[in-house]
Amino acid sequence: MKEYAQISPEFIADLEAVVGKEWVVTDAGILDQYKTDEEYDPKRFRVPDAAVKPANAQEVAEIVKLCNKYNVPLTVRAGGTSLADGAIAVCGGLVLLMERMNKILEIDTDGLYIVAEAGARTIDIQQLANKEGLLYAGDPCSAQSCTIGGNLATNAGGNKAVRYGVTRNQVYGFEMVTPTGEIVNIGGRLKKCSTGYCMEQLVIGSEGTLGIITKVTLKLVPKPPCHFDLLAIFDNAADALSMVPRINKAGINPTSIEYMDNQYVRYTSKYLNFNGAPHMEDGIYVIVTVETFTEDELDMKMEQLSELCEEAGALDVLEADERIWDMRRNCQECLKLISKVSLTDDVVVPVDKIVTTILKIMEISTKYPFKVPALINAHIGDGNLHIVLCKCDLSDEDWDKYVEAFHNECYAYAYEQGGRLAGEHGIGAKKIGYMEKFTPAGELDLMKKIKRAWDPNNILNPGKVINA
Amino acid sequence: MKEYAQISPEFIADLEAVVGKEWVVTDAGILDQYKTDEEYDPKRFRVPDAAVKPANAQEVAEIVKLCNKYNVPLTVRAGGTSLADGAIAVCGGLVLLMERMNKILEIDTDGLYIVAEAGARTIDIQQLANKEGLLYAGDPCSAQSCTIGGNLATNAGGNKAVRYGVTRNQVYGFEMVTPTGEIVNIGGRLKKCSTGYCMEQLVIGSEGTLGIITKVTLKLVPKPPCHFDLLAIFDNAADALSMVPRINKAGINPTSIEYMDNQYVRYTSKYLNFNGAPHMEDGIYVIVTVETFTEDELDMKMEQLSELCEEAGALDVLEADERIWDMRRNCQECLKLISKVSLTDDVVVPVDKIVTTILKIMEISTKYPFKVPALINAHIGDGNLHIVLCKCDLSDEDWDKYVEAFHNECYAYAYEQGGRLAGEHGIGAKKIGYMEKFTPAGELDLMKKIKRAWDPNNILNPGKVINA
Repeated sequence: MKEYAQISPEFIADLEAVVGKEWVVTDAGILDQYKTDEEYDPKRFRVPDAAVKPANAQEVAEIVKLCNKYNVPLTVRAGGTSLADGAIAVCGGLVLLMERMNKILEIDTDGLYIVAEAGARTIDIQQLANKEGLLYAGDPCSAQSCTIGGNLATNAGGNKAVRYGVTRNQVYGFEMVTPTGEIVNIGGRLKKCSTGYCMEQLVIGSEGTLGIITKVTLKLVPKPPCHFDLLAIFDNAADALSMVPRINKAGINPTSIEYMDNQYVRYTSKYLNFNGAPHMEDGIYVIVTVETFTEDELDMKMEQLSELCEEAGALDVLEADERIWDMRRNCQECLKLISKVSLTDDVVVPVDKIVTTILKIMEISTKYPFKVPALINAHIGDGNLHIVLCKCDLSDEDWDKYVEAFHNECYAYAYEQGGRLAGEHGIGAKKIGYMEKFTPAGELDLMKKIKRAWDPNNILNPGKVINA
Repeated sequence: MKEYAQISPEFIADLEAVVGKEWVVTDAGILDQYKTDEEYDPKRFRVPDAAVKPANAQEVAEIVKLCNKYNVPLTVRAGGTSLADGAIAVCGGLVLLMERMNKILEIDTDGLYIVAEAGARTIDIQQLANKEGLLYAGDPCSAQSCTIGGNLATNAGGNKAVRYGVTRNQVYGFEMVTPTGEIVNIGGRLKKCSTGYCMEQLVIGSEGTLGIITKVTLKLVPKPPCHFDLLAIFDNAADALSMVPRINKAGINPTSIEYMDNQYVRYTSKYLNFNGAPHMEDGIYVIVTVETFTEDELDMKMEQLSELCEEAGALDVLEADERIWDMRRNCQECLKLISKVSLTDDVVVPVDKIVTTILKIMEISTKYPFKVPALINAHIGDGNLHIVLCKCDLSDEDWDKYVEAFHNECYAYAYEQGGRLAGEHGIGAKKIGYMEKFTPAGELDLMKKIKRAWDPNNILNPGKVINA
């Protein structure tokens, strides 16, 4: 790996000249809070050498130019919600904090778009759209704390992707600072475009390695006024998972199709003291949300859907009220009941391979001495599953060893199915080794050529995604 | 511009060794048929120095390596339907013909995808999907003669883009040969992906400058069994164009919203001998297609839509039968009634700017001494308009001069509105000068860096899209 320079007093002085002294952090105690994101393992922490809080794109551009001049690596930190070590400055250097660039600048209810600074919280964007009877359809599970810039950087997924697609489908365009410190506007507010290279989709999902997104223009859509959440309960995974092709073929166009295995049903209901959770002991939950513009259409679709559930062998078909969604939302938190340390992974496969993949991963998991088998919750309508391991009383050494071996098996299987390492969490630093291992050489080479062409000094977020 | 080598006997011999002697064309008479695509102007023709017809990706890769070795530019020609000189070998050299790679390889009705060689005709893909009750939603107006590889190269649009998006939204992934002759697979059959750079969207729409697509995997969707085509007739453009925001806000989700100005209504009905065309003398046509999965939903939406038409001030609301669609389909052919030479252009603006843009372009057109004012047909639901000029009896010199001045004014206005040079036809060689003029320097620079990094010898389709 490339050698970077230590941060020097001259560099700090130049930074202060750009943003003002009060927006440069060099105090070790304060810097310590930026050593991790959602990473739990101290072996992966890294305290940055300095942090900076720019006010606008011009300042970001100046900062990037300074990093190039002084050979200092730069890592952007937004909400700090990465599950892939995406916000950790793994090569040290400077952390750029987006917290001051958090304003929503414009909402246009005729043009159906919203413009926000990259540090705006996703939930604020969602709520402002809602207030106007509109929908911003990006909806990562961390919407309360993540930022829109982070959503673009990782191409965040979430709960509405079946109908509306992922973050990359919600974006018209953005302003960004290139790795060499130029401010450019990429994309446009267009439904069709055949004018040069589609660089917006290249940058979205590149996890801060190809540019620093500073301002975004997002699509809004009319919010369907009618909706229904249905809970179908099954006693085996294969039946539950057969719902996806049935729903797709019927043209129901649901907003989401979510899956919780029975371990999750038991632990989330226990965690929430929800004693009456239906089929707590044997149920596998599939939650389907349908949204429509008229009550009549909703009635028709719900009738159709109920029939499909019965055909699939559901034990019970109920309304999924707020308590059920609470269970789904607490899939992460309930793990505390099982183990102090747990690890959430993210794999994606073709939608029609989700059944065999989940069954296979459950099978792989039993080969390892985990006290609790892998727990699985999944956005099954997207082929995107989260595989969760609990450390319980395993030694650090055994835990690391088994996790790695288990993941290797899971990823190899996913790739055989045409899947990939990450559906929505990104690669970050955490999976970079797997990325280099599982990505075919020709494809990896093309990625590295782009990275090197745009970022010749490898300044932006080094040690993430690919080893450029 | 870079100097390329002349084609040598050694190069031809090496080509023949790769594909077999019968698949290399050096006969001047045969090569002459590849001098143009849909370009009418002989000043823009260029006869290539040789042509080659590979059988598979391996041969394509070997050919690309030879072009790099011998410093010969390579232009891919598929259906030859480009309206932007996209298939003309403007730097001479070798033309690669996709005609032997035209097979549909697989259709999977459970996984909802289709795999085809890049030279497969779009209509064959559409028809095979239809036979299975499924829909391939890419639908360029040239579907009868264009190929799927060409559709990806230009990010072709067409008539179903309002609901389903453009070609880039129909693609899971593809096999391609890189500019240096490696075979790679880009993208995957995934609904979500956050695993490295999204290079498939970069290559789609890059018009053969970043790779030669050899095999594609396309999305299929369930085909809505019910549909209705409505014709709303207006006596002024502003009322007609107001239909778009009304329809979008109501959440009707139409498949298409098409626009024909009154000149087109008159000339197409005359061309087709359709004497009873409604409101032939004063009508502006807006054709709306709605597709649903149930008759009830269709009835509801048609009722809603009829009300919107009345609110918008429609003179008449009718069913758009095949005769109306025939008119729409003959917008190109009917021009023969006006002028031997005509020029179809393609501009895209934000959907909510289509009204002002069309009115402005009509106004600009009156400033020039064209015998017939600019004709406009448009995919108004996408903000994509086709502006057609007729030469009539203008001298060559005047025609070139006025066309250029008119286009410059139109493009400048479109860019002010946040629009771009091309919504679906691409830049090709025809608009490369405008591309360099209207694209901000920073954005253009990023495109060129990618092109140079992937194609260091500038072998693939030089003289197209950007001057790399």
